Amino acid sequence: MYAAPVQDLIDELGRLPGIGPKSAQRIAFYLLKAPSEDALRLSHAISLVKERISWCRRCFNVSETATGDVAGQSECEICRDDRRDKTTVCVVEEPRDIVAVEKTREYRGRYHVLQGAINPIEGVGPDQLRVRELLARIDAEAIVEVIVCTNPNIEGDATAMYLASLLRALPVKVTRIASGLPVGGDLEYADELTLGRALEGRRELA
Amino acid sequence: MYAAPVQDLIDELGRLPGIGPKSAQRIAFYLLKAPSEDALRLSHAISLVKERISWCRRCFNVSETATGDVAGQSECEICRDDRRDKTTVCVVEEPRDIVAVEKTREYRGRYHVLQGAINPIEGVGPDQLRVRELLARIDAEAIVEVIVCTNPNIEGDATAMYLASLLRALPVKVTRIASGLPVGGDLEYADELTLGRALEGRRELA
Repeated sequence: MYAAPVQDLIDELGRLPGIGPKSAQRIAFYLLKAPSEDALRLSHAISLVKERISWCRRCFNVSETATGDVAGQSECEICRDDRRDKTTVCVVEEPRDIVAVEKTREYRGRYHVLQGAINPIEGVGPDQLRVRELLARIDAEAIVEVIVCTNPNIEGDATAMYLASLLRALPVKVTRIASGLPVGGDLEYADELTLGRALEGRRELA
Repeated sequence: MYAAPVQDLIDELGRLPGIGPKSAQRIAFYLLKAPSEDALRLSHAISLVKERISWCRRCFNVSETATGDVAGQSECEICRDDRRDKTTVCVVEEPRDIVAVEKTREYRGRYHVLQGAINPIEGVGPDQLRVRELLARIDAEAIVEVIVCTNPNIEGDATAMYLASLLRALPVKVTRIASGLPVGGDLEYADELTLGRALEGRRELA
């Protein structure tokens, strides 16, 4: 019913995660009404990201290709940072998790991004993740500790267990971030799973 | 925290209607992971729409600029269709409403898209709508009937009342689509406003 370019745009928007047909239509008409420079800024941002951003060849974080680099052959800013502890690797699911860990200012090692978590329902197994690349790094980079920082949910926990079973054979310490009550939380409102984990992970007071 | 092109893309996506910061991040990483040709198809669809689509100079429906046309000077497919009744105008809020009316196959006249409805809370007054252009058409095109087909909600009704007050001075019949129970509906589940409108709009049985 719509002119072909409009329908094409609605279709392409509808392929994005979390965008249904109604939202796709709403966004398409928003872009139609928007000044050309605003809409083209989005179009340009998409092509720029595909052109300039690739995965860090070491840790699979997002990495901006520096001019002169071959795309996909560059390292991310964190891997390039010489002041970082190169013997500790924090394993996360997605690049956004690196941002969360960095905000704590508690961690000075490197990262490894799995680019997902094991999720049989959605067909994501270890082969779809950057697991092989992690194992290769342990020896090549003389890693001493792997901190498994996947999400504390079913998929993240399953991934952590799987990684632990693989890493057990290697001369490396494997740790998992603690689950428990959030700081400022309230026992009364904690769900029983979290409280159970908090009890399980109890520590002796000094 | 993210490389500049990634952050730019997240920012641009976050400006779209109904896309919060979390969705913008999710979509950005989806595009990062997607094959280049998929992401570039979206980028291309946006620029193509801005390049090829403009508003019909008569009815303000979306209109594909035919090759050779000056952008913004072309008419939409419906206005160009000679078999249409040129003396009846159906006034709608948005181009998508034309699609809804066309699906009924009950209407063979032309349209006029207001590109919104009066909404004082969002700062949309008659001056932001294509009202002046509608008034100009009545005389220029010898319009006989204006069917006000704005949504049956507060904004659409206010817009309809406003248009009726303006059109009263002109030699044209002004009608409003009926509000009432949906076909296949049930009295028991109808809200009282709709039922009230249905009673108000009752017709004599032939």
